[in-house]
Amino acid sequence: MSVLLGNRRFRFFDTTLRDGEQTPGVSLTPVNKLEIAAALSDIGVDVIEAGSAVASEGEREAIRLIADAGLAAECCTYVRALNQDIDCAAEAGADSVHLVVPVSDLHISKKMQKTREEVHAMAMSAVAYAKERGLIVELSGEDASRADQEFLAMLYRDGIESGADRLCFCDTVGVLTPERATEIIPPLCMAPLSIHCHNDLGLALATTLAAFKAGASCSHVTVNGLGERAGNTPFEEVIMSLETLYGYKTGIDTKKIYPLSTLVSRLTGVPFATNKPIVGTMAFTHESGIHAHGLFRDSRTYEPISPESVGRQRRIVLGKHSGSASVKAALTELGYSPNPRQLEEIVKRVKALGDEGRRVSDTDVMAIADAVMLLECKPIISVKQFTVVSGSNILPTASVTMEVNGEEVTGAATGDGPVDAALRVLQQSVASAGDIRLDEYHVEAITGGTDAMVDVTVKLRKDGRTITSRGARTDIIQASVEAVVTGMNRLLRELDEKRRTDTD
Amino acid sequence: MSVLLGNRRFRFFDTTLRDGEQTPGVSLTPVNKLEIAAALSDIGVDVIEAGSAVASEGEREAIRLIADAGLAAECCTYVRALNQDIDCAAEAGADSVHLVVPVSDLHISKKMQKTREEVHAMAMSAVAYAKERGLIVELSGEDASRADQEFLAMLYRDGIESGADRLCFCDTVGVLTPERATEIIPPLCMAPLSIHCHNDLGLALATTLAAFKAGASCSHVTVNGLGERAGNTPFEEVIMSLETLYGYKTGIDTKKIYPLSTLVSRLTGVPFATNKPIVGTMAFTHESGIHAHGLFRDSRTYEPISPESVGRQRRIVLGKHSGSASVKAALTELGYSPNPRQLEEIVKRVKALGDEGRRVSDTDVMAIADAVMLLECKPIISVKQFTVVSGSNILPTASVTMEVNGEEVTGAATGDGPVDAALRVLQQSVASAGDIRLDEYHVEAITGGTDAMVDVTVKLRKDGRTITSRGARTDIIQASVEAVVTGMNRLLRELDEKRRTDTD
Repeated sequence: MSVLLGNRRFRFFDTTLRDGEQTPGVSLTPVNKLEIAAALSDIGVDVIEAGSAVASEGEREAIRLIADAGLAAECCTYVRALNQDIDCAAEAGADSVHLVVPVSDLHISKKMQKTREEVHAMAMSAVAYAKERGLIVELSGEDASRADQEFLAMLYRDGIESGADRLCFCDTVGVLTPERATEIIPPLCMAPLSIHCHNDLGLALATTLAAFKAGASCSHVTVNGLGERAGNTPFEEVIMSLETLYGYKTGIDTKKIYPLSTLVSRLTGVPFATNKPIVGTMAFTHESGIHAHGLFRDSRTYEPISPESVGRQRRIVLGKHSGSASVKAALTELGYSPNPRQLEEIVKRVKALGDEGRRVSDTDVMAIADAVMLLECKPIISVKQFTVVSGSNILPTASVTMEVNGEEVTGAATGDGPVDAALRVLQQSVASAGDIRLDEYHVEAITGGTDAMVDVTVKLRKDGRTITSRGARTDIIQASVEAVVTGMNRLLRELDEKRRTDTD
Repeated sequence: MSVLLGNRRFRFFDTTLRDGEQTPGVSLTPVNKLEIAAALSDIGVDVIEAGSAVASEGEREAIRLIADAGLAAECCTYVRALNQDIDCAAEAGADSVHLVVPVSDLHISKKMQKTREEVHAMAMSAVAYAKERGLIVELSGEDASRADQEFLAMLYRDGIESGADRLCFCDTVGVLTPERATEIIPPLCMAPLSIHCHNDLGLALATTLAAFKAGASCSHVTVNGLGERAGNTPFEEVIMSLETLYGYKTGIDTKKIYPLSTLVSRLTGVPFATNKPIVGTMAFTHESGIHAHGLFRDSRTYEPISPESVGRQRRIVLGKHSGSASVKAALTELGYSPNPRQLEEIVKRVKALGDEGRRVSDTDVMAIADAVMLLECKPIISVKQFTVVSGSNILPTASVTMEVNGEEVTGAATGDGPVDAALRVLQQSVASAGDIRLDEYHVEAITGGTDAMVDVTVKLRKDGRTITSRGARTDIIQASVEAVVTGMNRLLRELDEKRRTDTD
């Protein structure tokens, strides 16, 4: 039992697939929606708002898929106070409706161009109709935080009489403060009440928690705080605040939070901030040399929750504050084993890069290590020449002359474009040294002019070992060739060393 | 006077250049730091923590530059309780020191490996020494929220006796709740007290506001909530919450918030989330068709603050919910004037793209408009063939045969790479039609394989008119040529039409 919250049971109503999907530019297919719904049900949310059935055939298909999937969570759909919307929801197989009625005079007069009486009548008739159609009804006041609270209370009271099972208070534009929630929520809890906050001023989480304390029993949330404008109350922040700060067991399987967040980010195409609480890249990343020593002694010194508790791992990165111990640790993780003299040179170059105001990424460290360590060993493969021809009426073609283990090899290949052709001929030509696969090809966005630096990263694989390598040139083909050849050399050298060690 | 906050004067202590700069991977040069400090002072913050003078020569140079710039804001520097740190701060010309002493037993024993008595003695000696060196002293308890509050109070009390001017309460790992701040802050306000929060659980802003109400007089903040892990209390959220929700005049020039945020994001290389409150791309973006009609009638229906109040503008974007009125408005803004039949076809294709689960960007709309509208008019220039040769021992060379105003032109050019060569020969070859400049060349990040789609956007300029155009192919050279030729045609056609209209 939580000290501040008592032993009430809170529910979590996830609206990632409705309010979250209304984020401009986001559009999920029915299959995407089902995948997210399954993950939401699996992690333990109580209600999933799957969409708005009246909106389109695609929405109805998504709701049908989710309703039929046999998930533990309740399948809810958004409806306006219109029979047409309720019919669509019922026919799509939803368990419940989130029945939204504008309640502030601003919304009633400006958006709806109606009177309070008209809106009240529409709401009562819609609640009764939804109950007739066998649906659970959550009657929701839109823009409730700017509404006349007397009118809102009357609407709720009459709604319950008309059959509404639950109520919802929507802070549509994110202006409800924790103080005001404490004051106005208690008299509205005449039935189980949900709180639905927006984060326009950054207070969605705090206000949601204040509403819980004031008597609300359910919180509307979205994964990663997705949603229009500044988004809705973030699911992961509500859960981890309750668990960590208020000692409240939410019943959510927190270890699945990070996988869920990345799934939603990938399918919606909306990245989360690097410093997003709990799920951002930096949330459990530390620059070695600043707080890393305290952290190595006891992780609680600079971490309020363990990364493992939300399905993540701690990351230590390098920068201008880094010492040689952390550079060595990073290199080991990246698959390098420099000797002491090489390590010293690598540390020097890492610090120099940091001092120039540059961010030191893994690929930077690798490029430095490659440069320093290659100086000392003859590469297994080297490119003597390569030529690429491309054009409007020409099949993109590349030729290469390489030395592979001391033997000269010449080859040619065609491809989907000049880069594709160049990388294919490289792979063909090293075949005598081994079957090296290109698992991933990535180019950083190029901005500026056609003479800007092009930054290419590739992932190569041979015999189960994968490495990442990088090239940077003004010419995309040269940068790609450089990345692949550097990576091939490292991969072959490592496997060579491993073979020798295994034989010893 | 604010209802909740009375008429006290709150101060804002910005630590973007110290705590913010400790974000792993971020490293600002002295000149960058000065630029940000000038903007901070200009917008109205009271104190700027410029860095840690002992850390490096670069840090000292930055602090010296800021201290000597004659800014209105106080120039503060971070110091540990060590004379060496204080000497560096004084010599760099700082006005004040943020003197940080670990106060939780966890930090004292695990990180410092000392006793409470040792830490207390170090703190008192450091305060006295800093006063001797003529510095304003803000005595700060690190990890104060997990400290024995009796010990913290004693340290503060003795610190004031030793000469400390101000106090600071650091919630180092972001575990202070608003409730606990309300409880523990009042007895600690024995001198002006700053509250320094971290956002690990998403409550930094709410806790900062609670501390203000409880008696704190200053808040530590960072622009965009920059900082280690999940970052610090965001400057823009504190200011706009106080101004909007608590009716408190902060004295900050809010119209400069967005320019400041983008400056910091650009110089640190840390983007903010698209749904970051106040400054995120989506914070004032609305998808036409969802809430846009309410918004057009009265912007307050879906906006708690006006975009102009923070130096921004409202944006309406297109998606699967968009109607023809909004598509037409977007096209006009992008420089297209379709006829009704063309508009109908463009709307159809925009909706189809949205229904496929695709995000509809400006470049998508432009590509669709180009395709639909070009069907109807003969292009001024067309490419008959182009050829590009590139390689390790070859100067990248491109040739092209084009028809320009009905005449065939053949040309060749070399460049920094094959793309550069191709775009140069295009520019040369259209010279008879006009001097078209390539102002910007941008390639979206390429992920997947070498056969992935490459998305190229170019900005072209002629006679003062600038347009944006796009190409998408698996071959980067073809995509670049397509983008430039499409754009050249649009530019020439528009200038042609303008000429005709002017002559009429």
